[in-house]
Order: sequence, then C-alpha cells, then structure tokens
Amino acid sequence: MVTRQPDVDPAVAATADDIEAMRIRGAATIADAAAEALSTQAKRSDATAPDVFERQLRAAAKTLYETRPTAVSLPNALRYVLRGMDGESVSALRDATIARAEEFQRELARAQTTLGTVGANRLRDGDVVMTHCHSTDALACLEAALEDGKEVEAIVKETRPRKQGHITAQQLREWGVPVTLIVDNAARRYLDEADHVLVGADSIAADGSVINKIGTSGLAVNARERGVPVMVAAQTIKLHPDTMTGHTVEIEMRAESEVVSDEERRTITGDADDGLVVANPAFDVTPPRYVDAIVTERGQFPPESIVTLMRELFGEMTGEPWEP
Amino acid sequence: MVTRQPDVDPAVAATADDIEAMRIRGAATIADAAAEALSTQAKRSDATAPDVFERQLRAAAKTLYETRPTAVSLPNALRYVLRGMDGESVSALRDATIARAEEFQRELARAQTTLGTVGANRLRDGDVVMTHCHSTDALACLEAALEDGKEVEAIVKETRPRKQGHITAQQLREWGVPVTLIVDNAARRYLDEADHVLVGADSIAADGSVINKIGTSGLAVNARERGVPVMVAAQTIKLHPDTMTGHTVEIEMRAESEVVSDEERRTITGDADDGLVVANPAFDVTPPRYVDAIVTERGQFPPESIVTLMRELFGEMTGEPWEP
Amino acid sequence: MVTRQPDVDPAVAATADDIEAMRIRGAATIADAAAEALSTQAKRSDATAPDVFERQLRAAAKTLYETRPTAVSLPNALRYVLRGMDGESVSALRDATIARAEEFQRELARAQTTLGTVGANRLRDGDVVMTHCHSTDALACLEAALEDGKEVEAIVKETRPRKQGHITAQQLREWGVPVTLIVDNAARRYLDEADHVLVGADSIAADGSVINKIGTSGLAVNARERGVPVMVAAQTIKLHPDTMTGHTVEIEMRAESEVVSDEERRTITGDADDGLVVANPAFDVTPPRYVDAIVTERGQFPPESIVTLMRELFGEMTGEPWEP
Amino acid sequence: MVTRQPDVDPAVAATADDIEAMRIRGAATIADAAAEALSTQAKRSDATAPDVFERQLRAAAKTLYETRPTAVSLPNALRYVLRGMDGESVSALRDATIARAEEFQRELARAQTTLGTVGANRLRDGDVVMTHCHSTDALACLEAALEDGKEVEAIVKETRPRKQGHITAQQLREWGVPVTLIVDNAARRYLDEADHVLVGADSIAADGSVINKIGTSGLAVNARERGVPVMVAAQTIKLHPDTMTGHTVEIEMRAESEVVSDEERRTITGDADDGLVVANPAFDVTPPRYVDAIVTERGQFPPESIVTLMRELFGEMTGEPWEP
Amino acid sequence: MVTRQPDVDPAVAATADDIEAMRIRGAATIADAAAEALSTQAKRSDATAPDVFERQLRAAAKTLYETRPTAVSLPNALRYVLRGMDGESVSALRDATIARAEEFQRELARAQTTLGTVGANRLRDGDVVMTHCHSTDALACLEAALEDGKEVEAIVKETRPRKQGHITAQQLREWGVPVTLIVDNAARRYLDEADHVLVGADSIAADGSVINKIGTSGLAVNARERGVPVMVAAQTIKLHPDTMTGHTVEIEMRAESEVVSDEERRTITGDADDGLVVANPAFDVTPPRYVDAIVTERGQFPPESIVTLMRELFGEMTGEPWEP
Amino acid sequence: MVTRQPDVDPAVAATADDIEAMRIRGAATIADAAAEALSTQAKRSDATAPDVFERQLRAAAKTLYETRPTAVSLPNALRYVLRGMDGESVSALRDATIARAEEFQRELARAQTTLGTVGANRLRDGDVVMTHCHSTDALACLEAALEDGKEVEAIVKETRPRKQGHITAQQLREWGVPVTLIVDNAARRYLDEADHVLVGADSIAADGSVINKIGTSGLAVNARERGVPVMVAAQTIKLHPDTMTGHTVEIEMRAESEVVSDEERRTITGDADDGLVVANPAFDVTPPRYVDAIVTERGQFPPESIVTLMRELFGEMTGEPWEP
Repeated sequence: MVTRQPDVDPAVAATADDIEAMRIRGAATIADAAAEALSTQAKRSDATAPDVFERQLRAAAKTLYETRPTAVSLPNALRYVLRGMDGESVSALRDATIARAEEFQRELARAQTTLGTVGANRLRDGDVVMTHCHSTDALACLEAALEDGKEVEAIVKETRPRKQGHITAQQLREWGVPVTLIVDNAARRYLDEADHVLVGADSIAADGSVINKIGTSGLAVNARERGVPVMVAAQTIKLHPDTMTGHTVEIEMRAESEVVSDEERRTITGDADDGLVVANPAFDVTPPRYVDAIVTERGQFPPESIVTLMRELFGEMTGEPWEP
Repeated sequence: MVTRQPDVDPAVAATADDIEAMRIRGAATIADAAAEALSTQAKRSDATAPDVFERQLRAAAKTLYETRPTAVSLPNALRYVLRGMDGESVSALRDATIARAEEFQRELARAQTTLGTVGANRLRDGDVVMTHCHSTDALACLEAALEDGKEVEAIVKETRPRKQGHITAQQLREWGVPVTLIVDNAARRYLDEADHVLVGADSIAADGSVINKIGTSGLAVNARERGVPVMVAAQTIKLHPDTMTGHTVEIEMRAESEVVSDEERRTITGDADDGLVVANPAFDVTPPRYVDAIVTERGQFPPESIVTLMRELFGEMTGEPWEP
Repeated sequence: MVTRQPDVDPAVAATADDIEAMRIRGAATIADAAAEALSTQAKRSDATAPDVFERQLRAAAKTLYETRPTAVSLPNALRYVLRGMDGESVSALRDATIARAEEFQRELARAQTTLGTVGANRLRDGDVVMTHCHSTDALACLEAALEDGKEVEAIVKETRPRKQGHITAQQLREWGVPVTLIVDNAARRYLDEADHVLVGADSIAADGSVINKIGTSGLAVNARERGVPVMVAAQTIKLHPDTMTGHTVEIEMRAESEVVSDEERRTITGDADDGLVVANPAFDVTPPRYVDAIVTERGQFPPESIVTLMRELFGEMTGEPWEP
Repeated sequence: MVTRQPDVDPAVAATADDIEAMRIRGAATIADAAAEALSTQAKRSDATAPDVFERQLRAAAKTLYETRPTAVSLPNALRYVLRGMDGESVSALRDATIARAEEFQRELARAQTTLGTVGANRLRDGDVVMTHCHSTDALACLEAALEDGKEVEAIVKETRPRKQGHITAQQLREWGVPVTLIVDNAARRYLDEADHVLVGADSIAADGSVINKIGTSGLAVNARERGVPVMVAAQTIKLHPDTMTGHTVEIEMRAESEVVSDEERRTITGDADDGLVVANPAFDVTPPRYVDAIVTERGQFPPESIVTLMRELFGEMTGEPWEP
Repeated sequence: MVTRQPDVDPAVAATADDIEAMRIRGAATIADAAAEALSTQAKRSDATAPDVFERQLRAAAKTLYETRPTAVSLPNALRYVLRGMDGESVSALRDATIARAEEFQRELARAQTTLGTVGANRLRDGDVVMTHCHSTDALACLEAALEDGKEVEAIVKETRPRKQGHITAQQLREWGVPVTLIVDNAARRYLDEADHVLVGADSIAADGSVINKIGTSGLAVNARERGVPVMVAAQTIKLHPDTMTGHTVEIEMRAESEVVSDEERRTITGDADDGLVVANPAFDVTPPRYVDAIVTERGQFPPESIVTLMRELFGEMTGEPWEP
Repeated sequence: MVTRQPDVDPAVAATADDIEAMRIRGAATIADAAAEALSTQAKRSDATAPDVFERQLRAAAKTLYETRPTAVSLPNALRYVLRGMDGESVSALRDATIARAEEFQRELARAQTTLGTVGANRLRDGDVVMTHCHSTDALACLEAALEDGKEVEAIVKETRPRKQGHITAQQLREWGVPVTLIVDNAARRYLDEADHVLVGADSIAADGSVINKIGTSGLAVNARERGVPVMVAAQTIKLHPDTMTGHTVEIEMRAESEVVSDEERRTITGDADDGLVVANPAFDVTPPRYVDAIVTERGQFPPESIVTLMRELFGEMTGEPWEP
C-alpha cells in the first residue's frame, strides 16, 4: 500500500483507497473523484497560513497520485485543480481551489457529450465507419450523429484478444445501427467500404502519437494506404503531460491467458513447456502522420498541434515528470 | 454429382468421386491423383485412332476437372499432362501422355523440398521470421534453413478466425524453433523485430497479386511501412491460369460461426436477431507492390514476372477460362 | 429575404441588403462592410444600459450574419468585432466596439500586402511557380516578389471549367511575367519544371485541410510525388471557425452548363436525355499532408498548426456553429 | 514525299501513299493494310532466287515504313510479317510470308474483342469505372462486361483540350451505361466513388511506361493515392519495339489553338503578343509503378513484364531502332 | 567594420567587436554575451527619460546585431531581452531590462541540460542511435540517458566533408558508449540496426523545416523508408524568427578545399583547370514530414507545431525581418 | 591454392593461376579469359569418347571456377560455354564448344558498346546526370550520348570511402563534360538539378535487387523521393545466377583503413583502443522498386523482369548453386 501523506483528510484517504483498489475506475470517474477529494480537502482544511494550506493540498494530491500514477486522467485532474490554487490568503486559496475543482468537474461532466458533437460533425449522412476496440468517446461521436438524424453504418473489428468489438457492436445494435462484424484480419478488405476509421485513445503524447488498443497502428497504416481518414476521439484528460518532457508511455503487457487457453498452449508446446512466448501487449503507438484528426471536447486538432493544447491545459513542463 | 463423360475409365471416375467427396484433398494430393488418373486412362485406352485417344483423354480430364474446378491445382495438373499429349500414332500419344504424367508427378514430389531450399537461401543465420496462417510451403523454407544449420526464430500470428497459427507454432516448436505467439493485432508492433515476413499462398494471379489467408494484405502493407521484406512461398501449382485472361479469383465467404459463437451473437443482437452481419472472407488479395519475392520450386521471382512463368508452364491463354 | 432583427440601425440593414443581393461581394469587401456596419450601429446606439447596447450589437450582427452565413469572412468579421465589445458602461462599450471595428478594418486593409510579402520571401530569384485558378492572395505573393526585384516565371493551369487561369495569366502578363499556359491535364508533366505550386484558398479548416478550387487536391498530390512544395496563400479571414467543432465545409455544386453546352449534351445523350449526370463541384479538399505552408498576413504556418491560430483569433469553440 | 524503293509492287506503293496521306489511319487499320501489302508483294514477286525475294520484301516494307515511322503499329506489322519470311526456296518463302501476313491479320481482327474479354474479366458486376480520353480498346472491355451481363457505371473525364471524353460518354450512353461527366480537375474527388481507372494507350515502352493522352499520369498518381487500381487496355500493336533499346517515345506538341482561341489569347496578352507560351503536349508518360495491369489480346500483364512479351513478339533488339 | 551606433556603452562595443572577430563564437556563447552586454548597457545608461533609455538600448542591440546578423542566436537573445524592457520610468525600465537579461542567461545556462533530459526520455535502455555530424544538443540527450543508467550504442556517420562524426565518436567513447563508425554512404544499410536517428540543428524554420549539416535530409528520408524515427535536438535559440515571415535560410557555400585537395583537383581536371565545379553547401533542409520530434529545453514538439512556440517566444512578426 | 583438376590442359591451369593471382581481373576480362581457356581445352582435348571430352571440359571449368567463385562473371562465362557443348561425337562436341566460346567472346567484346547505345537512348540533349562510384558500363552510356551529339552535364558524388567518383569525374572531364563534384551527403540537395541517376552494378539478383557500391540504395531512395528516375547500367555478365535459387549475395566487408587512418582512430579512441568498430561494407542492396530501368547489351529491362532474362541466359536453376 502507498504511504499516506500526513495532514490529509480522511475523505481523501478513502478516495485514494478506492482508486487503488479499483473500486473507482475508468478515466473520467477517477478524474472526477480526485477533483472532488481535493475540493473536500480544501473545504475541511484547518490551515491558518497560506503555505500550510498549499502544503496540505499538495499532500492530498500526492496521496491520490500515488495510487495509480500511470492512469493519466488522475494526475491531469490533480494538476488542473492545483494550478487554480491561487490567492494570498487561506480563504482566497480555499475558494479558488474549490471553484477550480468544480470547474474541472463541470467540464468533465459535459466533455464526452461535447466531444461527441464535434466528432459527429465530421460524419455525413450515409457514412460507413470502421471501429476498433470499444471506446465511449468514439461511440459518443456516433451517438451524436444519430441524434442529428444522420444514418450511419458500422464495420466493427472484433479486436482480439479481448473482443471488445462485441461491446461496441452491442451498443450500436441497441441504437439500431447496421453492423458488420469482422475479424481483425479482414480490416484492409473492408476499408474499401468505409468512409472513416474511428477509434478512441488510451492516451495521447506530445509528439502527436496516439496510444491505443493494440492493432490501432496497423489499422491506421492500412487506412492511409486505402485512402480512408482516421479520426481519434479522446477527451483532453487523455492527453499525457509527461510526454511533453519526452517520456514515452509504457505499454502494459497483459496475461498470456487472454491469447491462449491452457489447452491451446499444451497443444502447441507438447511435452516440453518452453520455447513458446505468448506476447500480449495491451496497446500500440500510432504515429501522428497516420491520424487525420483528434476530436476532443475542445474541438478537433491535427495530432501535430495537440502539444499546444497540452501546454495550454497543463502549463509548461520542466524536465521531470510531474508530481504533486 | 457431376455428369460423368462417356468413354472414361472406371479408375478415372473413381478418382473423380474421391476428389469430389474430398477424400482426396490438399493442392498437391489432388494434382498428383489427377495426373495419375490421366496416366491410367492413357494406359488403358482402347482407342485405335489418334483422335479417339485424344477425345478419351479430354473426356477423362473433363470428368476430373468438373469435380472441383476452383481448386487451382486440379486444372493445372490436367492442363500440364494434356499439353504433353503429342504424337502421330496412338502408341506415340500414349507413351507421351504417360511420360508427361510421370514427369508432372515426379516434379510435384520434389517441388516442396526444392522450394524450401530456395526460400531457405533467402534467410540468414539468426533471422527472425514473422508468419501468418499455416502453410507447408512456408514451413518448408524454415525447415530447409534449419537443416542448413541456420538458427531462426519465429513470430507467429495466431491468424483469426481459425487460428491456424497454432498449427504453425506447434510445428516450429517440434523443430525446436523459439516461437513468439501474438494476436494478429500485434503484428505491426512486432514487425520491428522481424527480418522477414513469410507466408504461403492460396493462389497467385497473372497480375502478380497474391491470394492468401485473410489478413495477409494488411500484414504486407505494414511490413513495407516497417521496412521488412515479404516472401511468399508457393509451388507453381498455385499459379492461377485463368487470371492470365483477366479472371479474378473468387473469394470464399465462410461460415459466421467461425467468428462468433451463437451465444456471442445473441449477446450482441439482443432480442432482435437482425442488423448484424458477420462477414468472414477466407482470403484477401495482396498487390504485387507489397511482395518482395515469390519462392517456387523453379526459383524465386518478383511477383511482376510470375506471368512469364505462367505462360511458360501453361501456354498462352485464350479469352475464355481453360477447360479440358 | 432574411428576417431583420429589431433595434437595428437602418445603415446596418442597408449593408445587409447589399451583401444579400451580392452588391457587396468578395471575401475582404464583405468583411470590411460588416465591421463598418457594426461600428455604425455602435456609434448610433441609443442604448442607456450596457446590456441593451450589447443586445443591439448582437442583433445587428445577427442581421448581417444571416445574409450569407456560408461566406466565411462574414462571421469572422462579426465575431472579431463582438469579441472586442468589452466595458462596464455604454460609453466604454461603444468606444471599445468602434475601436475594435477600426482595428479589424485597418488590419484587413493591409492583410493582403503583408501576406504577399511573406509569400514572396519563400520565393527565390529565378523560380518558376505553377498556379491553379485565380487568387488575389496568391498573386500578391508574386507581385511582392517582383517588387523585390526577383525574376519569376509562371506555369498557369487554365482551371476548367471556368478557366480562371486566364485571368491569372492576364494579370501576370501585365506585370511582365513570362507565362506558360497549360491545360489542367498537363500539370504533372510541367511540375518537373516548377519550383513551387502556389494557390489560394476558399477556406481553411481546423484539421489543416485546404478547401480550394476543384483540382487543387489532385495537383497537390502530384506536386508531392514530383518533389515540388505547395504553398497556399490565404488571409486569416479565410480560416473557417466552424470547422474547429468538426463541421465540414459544404462543397457547392455548380451549374452543369459550365461544363457542357446544350449542344454538347445533346450530342452525348442523343434522343433520350437521361442517364447522363454532369457533376460540377466548385471546390475540393486538400489534406494538410500535401501542403507545405499556409501563408497569411500573420506569417506562414504548417497547415497542422493553423488550428492554433484559429483559437487565438476566434476564441475557443463550443460544440455548436458560431452565431452572433 | 518518301522516296519509293525499287522493285516494289504498285499495290504496295499505293498503300504507302494512302498511309502517308492519312487516307488509311488508326493503329489497327494501318497495321492491317501494311500486312496486306506485304502479302501482295509476296504473291506478285517475280523473284527467282530466295535472296532476291527477300530483298524485294524488305524494299516493300521499307517503302511502307517510311510513310509514318512513328506510328508504332506500322513497323510492328512489318516486323511481324518479315520475321515469318522463312524458307529455302522462293516458293517456300512466298508461302511462309503470305501465311504469316494472314496470321497477323487474323489475330489483329480478333485482338480487340479478345482484349475486351480479358479486361471485362477484371470487372465485377456493379463496378464504377473512371475513364480518361477515348480509347476503343478500353471501351471494348466495358462492352464485353456489358455482354457478360455485368452492370457497370462510368465516371468520364472530359479530357481537355480536345474533350474526347464526350465521345466516350456518347458511346457509353448508347450502350445504356449511366455516365457521370466531370472536368479533369474533379478526378481526385470522384476517385472515391470509382472501383477502377480504365484507360487506353498510345504506346507502351519496354521499361513498362505507358504513353497515353496527356493527363493519364496525373490521374494514375491520384488513383494510387486513393487506393483505386489502374488498368490499361492496349493491343500488342501498341508495344513500342524501339524502346527495347532505350529509345524514348517522342511526345507530340500540338497546336495551341486547341487550348486557347485567338480571342482568349488576345485577352490574356493584351497589346503585346509575346511572353505567353501555350504548351500543348498530346501525351504523357505514366511510370509502371502506378499501373496495376496492362490488358492485351494475349492476356493481362503487370507493366514490368511487358518487355518479355515484346521480346517474344518482336525478337531481340539490336542497339539501333528497327528498320526493314 | 560595422558602423557603431552613438550612445553605446564601450562594453557593448567591445562585445560587438569580439563577436565580429569570432573571439566569441558558438550559438549559446554569443547569445549569452549579447544579453550580458544589453544588461551592462542598462546598468550604465545615463538616460533620464524613458524614451532616451529605450533608444540607447536599441542602439546597443543594433550594434550587436550587425556583427553577425545571420547567427540566429544573436537576434534571438537581443529580441528576448528587448521584449522585457517594460516600464514607465527609467528606473523601472532599467530593472526590467536587467532582470530580463538575467532570466535569459539563467534559462540559457540550463537549456542544454534540460533539453538533454527531455531527449533522453525518448530513449530506452538498449537503444541504438545513429548520429550525423557533431551536435552538443544531441550529445546532451545521450549523456542524460547514460546518467539515467540506460545503456545505449551509437552508429556514427563520419559526416563528410569535415568528418565531425569523429568528434562525436570521440566524445561517445569517452563516455564509454560502444561506437560503430561508418561512411555516410553506409547509412541506409545500418539504419536496420538503429532505433533512432538523432541529430542537432543549425536552425529551425517556421514551416517546420530543419536546417542542419548537409546530409541530414537524405538521412531523414532513408530513416522514414526504413521505419526509424528521427529526433532533432535543438535549443530554442536555434528557432529562426525571420522564417515566420516566409524568409528562407540562406545556405552557406563553403570552400572547395574541404572536398578536394589541390592534387585531387589537378588529377581530375588534368591540364585545363576548368569545367569542374566543386560544390560544398554546408547545410540542407529537411522537411517536417521526415522529422518525428524536435527536442528543446521547453519540451518536445512535432516540427509542425514549432511555429506556435516561435510566436510565443518572439511575438508576432511583421512582414519585415526583425531588426532592433 | 585451389586443387587443380586432373586432365586439365596446362593453358587452362595457367589462366586459372592468373585469375587467382588477380593478374587477370575485371568482370569482362575474367569472363573472356575463361571462355578462351575452355576453347583451348576443347581444341587440345585428346578425348576419343564424348563422355571423356565432356568430363575434361567440366574439369577445366571447375579448375577455373574455383579460383574466384564469387566473381559472378566467371561462372557466367563457364556456364554459357558449357551449355553450348552439344553433339554426339567428340568432333561435334569440340566444334560446338569452340563456336560457343567464340560466340561468348564476340558478344562480350561488343556488349559494353551496345549497352552504351541503349543507355544513351534514354538520355536527352541537355540532361543532367548524377553518378555514384565509377562504372565503365555507366560511362559507356554517357560516351554514347556524347557521340550522338547530345550535350550532358554530370553531378558526380565523390563516393567515400575510396572516392572512385574522382575517376568518373576525370573521365568525364576528358570527354569535356561539365562536372559538379559533391560529397555524398549533398546528393539530395543536388537531385533537384538532376534528370537521371545513373549507376553501374556489381551484380543483379533474381528478385530484381541491384547490388552496387555502398551508398547506391540510399541514393535511389532519395531519387524516388525527389522524382528523379534511376538507371542501372550492367552487362548481362553481372546477372547473378545463384540468386535464382534464392541465394543472397554476400557483401564484402573491407579494411577499416579505407575509412579512418591510424591517427584518426587513435584520436577517437584515446588510450583504450576498443569500443570502436569501423564498419566498411563494400556494397549495398537496392530493392527493385527504386530502380526504373536496368540497361544491358540486350536492351533495357524493368528490374522485376530481369529474372526472365536470367532464365533465358542461364537455363532453369536447380536448388543448389551452380557448379561446373
């Protein structure tokens, strides 16, 4: 368990525990809880000097941060709130911090809807969209297009190993969207029938790279070769601030059991259970040159300009990863 | 059942039945049986005039041909043998036909081994090879490389929907080759560690296109983008003569049950079982510009020159698909 | 006719009428008139409370806006002026608005000249420039280069269907520039002799796309293939703010009579006058990856960074198209 | 006028005159007449020694050749017939030459039909084809597809400066094919709706280049960028033998009056009628890498393998252009 | 010698002399000296009115600027300091100017170290880096990676004509980095073994182009073709403000003696010493599309967004090159 | 020393010694000497039975072959002559072999001239050609162009490490060709001024790859990017038969002293002379997709069709490298 900071309100510690135990999960949900916790800390602070107040808030942020430092929406929420902690008295600091947290939460609450509107605007009536994996940001674009009265169809890649394409297909069928489900290998063939590739993102780097579910980059390369534009739907809490200082996003390697069953493994290896590695990276990196637009709740951006938005949102970076 | 031609030897009819019922299957096995049947027809012919002999042989070929006209090795075998039916007397025709059939069978018997040697020559000690699907021609290249004492490693794509990559992995493990098994979506990421992409072919067209297991073309596009050469291993019985006259190879659409289970389908569609199409093409078409070499038992060829080999092997084409 | 807003000064209404009737036309002329009208409205306002003043100004803007909402320079002018309407008293608001309108008009007046200087700086003495259509922004670059004493030559595409290339050629000849006039089909051949492709823009989208006269995108693709850089000259009133929220720019389809005469049509269709569609889109969309620089009066920009300039000029966008 | 060779039959001289005066024109018509003339020369030869016969035939060929040496089908016909002039007696030479000429004419007569069948096989029911200029070889492919019962649609580029696209559109409308007529500048936009680009050829070079109506190469580059395959329909009499020895095909520059009327010219140049060049090349050169297949009456070929067909048809080349 | 401005402090004049005589050289050293000189001028100014103070400072800047106007770090330093000259009294102006100069010098002092950290973050343990020429900014990235405990290897291009690659190799060997030294011609072959190309920059243009040692652009094109990302390390004093207004960076042509010795020249030309030009450009221009990231002390940027950083650092540009 | 075969004529052994000792060197000279030696062996053979004659000839060929088996022109000469050893008596065999050797020598003698004519035909008056390394085949093209009266200019890359570009420059200056000499790093910049890249070849592989002096492949990639066609001049004795069976051409690694002097090495490594590898490969491999034409004495070929010429010249290959 992460070492808790001193002077941290119990409510903050409770939120930290929930995030750490993954009782609170999902990029937006974590971000909302973290902002809420900082707001609570601000409200309940017994500090009588501005520097003490600030120290307490940083300690709270640190406690939260250390639960899952690689979940990019968490430090983004903390940083956003702390940047608004501005004032010359405790009372001013408290008010500013609470207001900032509320602003963050308010914007977060409507971010996906706004993003959906922006993405939907890129779609025309009758368009066919190819999807990869399952992304609520990407689906928000389709939902908004449907609400605009546009008819769209979807070609849904199943997205091995975990077949999250099935979730996407299910959601689209609930909305009445005609769905063609294909294995990932069939993507290039069906790109000839697609008007857009639409995917979400796990995070987005300052060099314009899109980190997303494994298979995204191969799809994007083929989409370019077939002349199909690629749209990435990602709220700005997916922007990865550490990448502004050159940090690369570490790619999670997941359990091989997602790829082969025990029996399949045995069939392959026979008696001697070695010499076989099952490599199961969760994500890959799509270079910006294969992405036509990144759709956020603050509008659409070419991937090469996303760094400017990051600087605007997060402030200029120092050479070290951000820590509260 | 196919209508049998008159004057056809019972042994030919029996072979035709076996091919039709898929008791005889596999590109090479079918080709061998067809050549053998024509040889038998020649041996047993009671013709006393050359034209009768020729008619009988063509009838036999037609009987065989009609069992599975889209299995490209079958017409290839028939055509090859019939092209050798040359002579001015029945006796000369018989001898020529039998000799031609034997020649075909002899070459067929050693084709995969020879092809393997050619393909192996392209590999260097220490190379890492990425495979797609399961191809005995492709494996023959790796086997020959191992026999040459070269150490090779393999990155094996599982190849959804039928996961024939597992068969490839199993064979390679039996030979002691270190194997990294990945989902198809991970291919681009692992191409950075591969020195070659090595695949087989279902058939090869006169415009240099390679028809192979679905996913090959998307892999080839990514291999080019990553700077990895693509080698296709294919015996010449995979060359598709009808494509010389512009015919395209029809792509088999397979059962959706290979892609989704009934339960998965129900989960996606809910109560109303419509609006979902599961599209499952067996093959795709890789343009020649993404293939670096086609390795056959007659040497290696750039895909753009394979039409010359086809003309050499099959003779010049008329505007209609070949029929006996 | 557009419904006029209440409380709008007659001079504003008159300008609105002139814009609607296209007595006022051309991107810059419309923008200037709109700013002037808002300034007049501010000067003549009888409002005694700030909110009334602001309401009147917005009503004036709305009246103007609705005349030609798709002429991108019009909302750009309105938005610019309204963003400067800042103050706590009517008098302050009036002064600020008038000053802002003057600023806009002043900048507009010198924008093309400044842009021309910037574009000219990219040209070297002796360069050969290929043009498409007729654009005063593009010509301003050449004019400035000539004024710098640089010798330039031009290869002028005639630009079917309306052959605006002739106007370009005429202007260049007046300036003494040697001109080679070619049909559009000859562009790739003559790109080998060109040092730059230089075009204007109808509008520029937030994803970096350039909307310009039909044929621009095909030319840009060929220019990249031939190694010739593509420069787009466009004042910032051509930046299309709605595209920041994902809106695509609707492409005007023009009369088929620009493409075929009645007689030509009859020759083609014979007796039955159907089955022939003459499609005549006015513009096409060039992706940013084929554009090397967008030259504006605020400097040159890679197309991928134009969104940053748009956010600077127009403010951050909400999910809906801007309306006054 | 070309100097006539001695010992040439008057009928040969008459044909030569007709070709020179363009009373006989069109690639196939010229070729047929030339073969016929050689056959006549062979029939009427009074030679009593083989070498005299051969000298007469070469003189006849030379007479014909010199009328229009750059019309590639003419030397092709002559060369083909002369290559068949084989025998040890005058009588044998005569028979062989006549038979060879007949063979050439017979093959020529059915070449376009056969080519059409081959090209049609590449098209599928429902395909949309984009055309450039007017080519009877290309139209033969569409005609054969229609005869096969396939439904096709056409996007027809008008093909400035001479608008031969109108002839193509007219022919297609007669066959009932739905036609969308566009200016050349609109090609890239409509490529998204095309399944094939289909063009003819003026001639084809040994390095696989396709010389065709100006605008072909720019279209082919865009077709590749949009993922649309390019098919070239060309009878083998379009293969340009001199290119086997490295010769480049000279591009005809045509009258500027095809591009601008006198009035248009005056408008552009004003008083001083200089400084304006109207460049009007008839053809351009498409590199083989942008062509997917060349369809001939001998089957389809990747452009890179056409040199092999040329060597087969014309024999190996010496370092000099062929002359009889 | 440059004409000195009146009212300029002798210390400023001395610094100007040293820069002009290249006693002070190197981008960072020049910039530091220029800022110091302006600070001195501010400290010693006898101005009693703000406008006089400002005029003196501009005169000092002009004196410095004219020594080497093409050394981009010099105007960058001057402009930065002058932009901070803000205040309503001489005393306020003096304080602001001195503070601004100190800020500039402080940031400059740590810029390379910070940049190194950012660049190092892009490298992973075990990476192989290919270098071109010698750049302390690029080496700072490798040094920081080594300090992070990452093991890296280097492939060092010798970089004709001056072989600065030897200096790079020497430095890397001092740090214990395994080095493979190659001629420039061997770069493509060894790119297959490289994970990154890492170079410095002479200057960076507003259109995202990188001006660097001759050979950089050819290397970058090959790196893209081989799938290797290209990183450019450049402090922000390398950003070239004049390019914001379209100015191109003039490429220095250096002495031919760097390329051929007198004896080599004589051997080539024989008796007649003409007809041979030895062209020796010092730099070339790499388009932004071949660069993956520009690493600065303010973080990493895609080259297409560097113009935004330039506007932030230098303010918006007018149509003329900046002068004090 | 190679073990000499029994029954080999002393003249053959002497030639073998000369080749081995490199007293006979150069691709064409070796080939000529080898053919001459086989002819001598045939003339002097004392065999009385055909099989003895054949055995002797093969022994002679083996003796010659083993001197330098990797010099591709040597086995090519031997194979060519042996393939003509056809007849049913010793006398017939002798005559055939001698005639075949003479034919080979005769063709060899004029090959470079013929090749030059073919290559020259690709050049137009006024063209600028960029060269790499020194190749008499490439120079033969330029010489023939000059003899045709065409004016050409040359941009000559110096071609480190051995600077054979100087030899090329010297030869061109002797012929009066204007030469611009550049370092290899400057190639991309000067490609904008070149109409052709023209290089020779060390050998050419069946997959269309061109093995040539290190740096060729990087140049070819840049030439494609700049839109400049690449021509390879290579006599057919440069075709590498073993590659037909998949063999790759081993790349010679040359002495590091060609790259660094001892002193340069010491400067780089300081006291400890390790950690520095100087890698000096003599050749690299250019994929066929970057080569526009291979010019031989038998005409020009796209690289993808060269395998057909190889099969024609060398016969079909078995799975093993050819040996006499």
